[in-house]
Amino acid sequence: MDTQLDSFFAQVDSLSDHFIDRLRRAVAIPSISADDARRPDVVRMGDWLAHELEKLGVEVEKRPLGKQPHKEYLDLPPVIIARYGSNKEKRTILVYGHYDVQPASKEDGWASEPFELTIDSKGRMFGRGSTDDKGPVLGWLNAIEAHQKAGVEFPVNLLMCFEGMEEYGSEGLDEFIEAEAKKFFADTDAVCISDNYWLGTEKPCLTYGLRGCSYYSLEISGPAQDLHSGVFGGTAQEPMTDLVRILANLVDTNGKILIPGLAELVAPLSEEEKALYGDIAFNMENLYESLGSKTSIHDDKEKTLMARWRYPSLSIHGVEGCFSQPGAKTVIPAKVIGKFSIRTVPNMEPKDVDRLVFKYVSDQFEKLKSKNKMNCTLQHAGKWWVASPKHWNFTAASRAVERVWGTQPDLTREGGSIPVTLTFEQATGKNVLLLPMGSSTDGAHSINEKLDRKNYIEGIKLLGAYLHYVAHEPIINT
Amino acid sequence: MDTQLDSFFAQVDSLSDHFIDRLRRAVAIPSISADDARRPDVVRMGDWLAHELEKLGVEVEKRPLGKQPHKEYLDLPPVIIARYGSNKEKRTILVYGHYDVQPASKEDGWASEPFELTIDSKGRMFGRGSTDDKGPVLGWLNAIEAHQKAGVEFPVNLLMCFEGMEEYGSEGLDEFIEAEAKKFFADTDAVCISDNYWLGTEKPCLTYGLRGCSYYSLEISGPAQDLHSGVFGGTAQEPMTDLVRILANLVDTNGKILIPGLAELVAPLSEEEKALYGDIAFNMENLYESLGSKTSIHDDKEKTLMARWRYPSLSIHGVEGCFSQPGAKTVIPAKVIGKFSIRTVPNMEPKDVDRLVFKYVSDQFEKLKSKNKMNCTLQHAGKWWVASPKHWNFTAASRAVERVWGTQPDLTREGGSIPVTLTFEQATGKNVLLLPMGSSTDGAHSINEKLDRKNYIEGIKLLGAYLHYVAHEPIINT
Repeated sequence: MDTQLDSFFAQVDSLSDHFIDRLRRAVAIPSISADDARRPDVVRMGDWLAHELEKLGVEVEKRPLGKQPHKEYLDLPPVIIARYGSNKEKRTILVYGHYDVQPASKEDGWASEPFELTIDSKGRMFGRGSTDDKGPVLGWLNAIEAHQKAGVEFPVNLLMCFEGMEEYGSEGLDEFIEAEAKKFFADTDAVCISDNYWLGTEKPCLTYGLRGCSYYSLEISGPAQDLHSGVFGGTAQEPMTDLVRILANLVDTNGKILIPGLAELVAPLSEEEKALYGDIAFNMENLYESLGSKTSIHDDKEKTLMARWRYPSLSIHGVEGCFSQPGAKTVIPAKVIGKFSIRTVPNMEPKDVDRLVFKYVSDQFEKLKSKNKMNCTLQHAGKWWVASPKHWNFTAASRAVERVWGTQPDLTREGGSIPVTLTFEQATGKNVLLLPMGSSTDGAHSINEKLDRKNYIEGIKLLGAYLHYVAHEPIINT
Repeated sequence: MDTQLDSFFAQVDSLSDHFIDRLRRAVAIPSISADDARRPDVVRMGDWLAHELEKLGVEVEKRPLGKQPHKEYLDLPPVIIARYGSNKEKRTILVYGHYDVQPASKEDGWASEPFELTIDSKGRMFGRGSTDDKGPVLGWLNAIEAHQKAGVEFPVNLLMCFEGMEEYGSEGLDEFIEAEAKKFFADTDAVCISDNYWLGTEKPCLTYGLRGCSYYSLEISGPAQDLHSGVFGGTAQEPMTDLVRILANLVDTNGKILIPGLAELVAPLSEEEKALYGDIAFNMENLYESLGSKTSIHDDKEKTLMARWRYPSLSIHGVEGCFSQPGAKTVIPAKVIGKFSIRTVPNMEPKDVDRLVFKYVSDQFEKLKSKNKMNCTLQHAGKWWVASPKHWNFTAASRAVERVWGTQPDLTREGGSIPVTLTFEQATGKNVLLLPMGSSTDGAHSINEKLDRKNYIEGIKLLGAYLHYVAHEPIINT
């Protein structure tokens, strides 16, 4: 395998300009899924991707997902599914990525044109979608091409699933994955997703856990219409007063969730797990840099990582229906809707979280003895996900990282959620690995999104090397 | 005087179609001061009004107010000042009104075209500005015309001040009034403003008090930019958490202000004042109808009227900088600005209110032991106003009401503020009377704004009769 990888790596290096050009062509297509007017570009991006795959001899299908929910005039962009190889002797690895991107325009403050790949002297390749997720998606294609040109046998059967709606809630994808789990994806042995980031900028990682998210709306209503505070202030009970009083009792400044029973749902911290956090390549300066301030809850790294990865958190996102503009308006809003969410972790069952939230909020409202009406609803819930990092899918990836980057990867979890991860795990019943290409400073959803040249080129090697190691990794446990 | 009034009243009745047509022509000009694009219509309305006055032989001046603050590309519409009569033997009454209107468009839900006066079978005259404030402004012109056509001598010298920016903060007016107090307005004996409403629909009133308003911004900031709650929830102190905890401690569901020392600033309730509230034509059903709900703080009329007129109230209007749209967004806002205001009453000095608010908010923030930054500022303060209803300006108006409507007016205060009232009082040093024409159901700032035909026609008589009574009312006290 070592000789094969050497040839493959050398080929990647010699094709690197070609691969960067491929990324340039992908970035040039503004496949913004959230913008109705850009839908033809999303479809064009899918067509381009399918065509690139076909040129590599990959079997490709463009699968329609029907009309977009709540926007029946819009077709969803197709899911591009593809198969490269169908040798029964080989393992079959299913990889996922997305070809749509976040919105971007020069006016937002980009230093360069967002849809023109612009490479600076430090090798930073700026462009919308460079790191999220066109770079990683093309990584799989580039790995195939480098194998072909190097004359190295492809080590696995590769199934691919590339969607075009990830940045807009992956509309329609869950049903599709579930429907294809026993069809197109039937012989999957393991799943790999490259759509997240290193914890920092220097050390690669493998990610084995994500928090879930339960998002709530808390509506308080009273009068039939907005009132003038001069005329009605002091005579009407004000929904906004009730709302802030309930929101104020959800969580404290140091992030302590005040909802009784919630903490008891959290899996206890074992000594073994506790010991893991010390070695992670992360420090408080990394956090302060991301925050742009020192307004952290904890002052040490271990507590910070645990708070991000393995404990729940509650954030109040905003209020709908109140005065939200600059300036002054003397309105008493008639109906206000507070938005808050809880990031969930093992072993919090979403339905238990709902039950505790609804009861607590009701109790708090009851205490106010208000004549207004209160209604608390769940907007959406995505469950947390934790895989076993001892699974052969992870140990193979770990070896690949060591081979390419010369260091053991950190085993990380993430505070956010990538809902498709759990969908793949549940639909296929197989282990899912998150194998990031980019680093923490890539600014996936921000202005000046970039992917470092090094992360792209070494990342292509990493994805290819992973497929070699995972092809042969002995099954120890799951 | 009785004969003169009879002739005047008869003339008003016979000219009523003409007067309604004058209102129709005024309503047809969409003089929306808040809409930059409508500024030429505001100016056109001012020109039209000046021309109508000139046709009646009134001396008119259009006084420029310069550029609009923060919108230097826009000229403010002129103040129309006018004088009718300059007989040293007569009293001089200064009246104020405004010729601009609130925004309106059919799409907002109007049943008829907002800028076409539409009269229904009940005599309701729908149209933007009908009651606020074109009807009352034209009332003064109509009264002059009816005197002329009836051959009745005009009883006073009438000074008029009609502005075109009232619905947009009366930009530039205060300075103008102060500058003209000893010039154009120098011989003013009393001031009358017709720009408010009856407390209900049946009984006329005279208004002798208004609450003030001190409006605050409470800003909490932490991180340098908005954060993702998945990545940072549990590790960063969240400004929104701190903000709701402070807002929650400002006021309770029943309107009790929790800021120590504020209640002590309020003038004590005398037995004499207390006795006044029982007779006011108002009941709880009126309140419930306005609210469109029964979510009142108090269950009886007296407490409700006192809460509206003579006690302070605190309203939380909204939050700037947080997620305020429908749907779900998992943002941790980096900087949030809570907006709240206190309606002030005698004897609350605005600077004392500021001092107590700033201290309390600081203390509350201190208690949170937060690393975020807090900054509380006053956006604007308008002082409360209370006049003596025993002044001859009021007793004259009271007689006029009795003559026209056959009933004693209620003596009311209002919960809101009309800042120009205090400006006129302070600049001229004279008594100011609020003499409303329209009723509580006119919907001044809402869709389907209207003025009842009866209120308009009898209102013209009332304004004219007031001028007769005020011309001869003996000076008892001020």
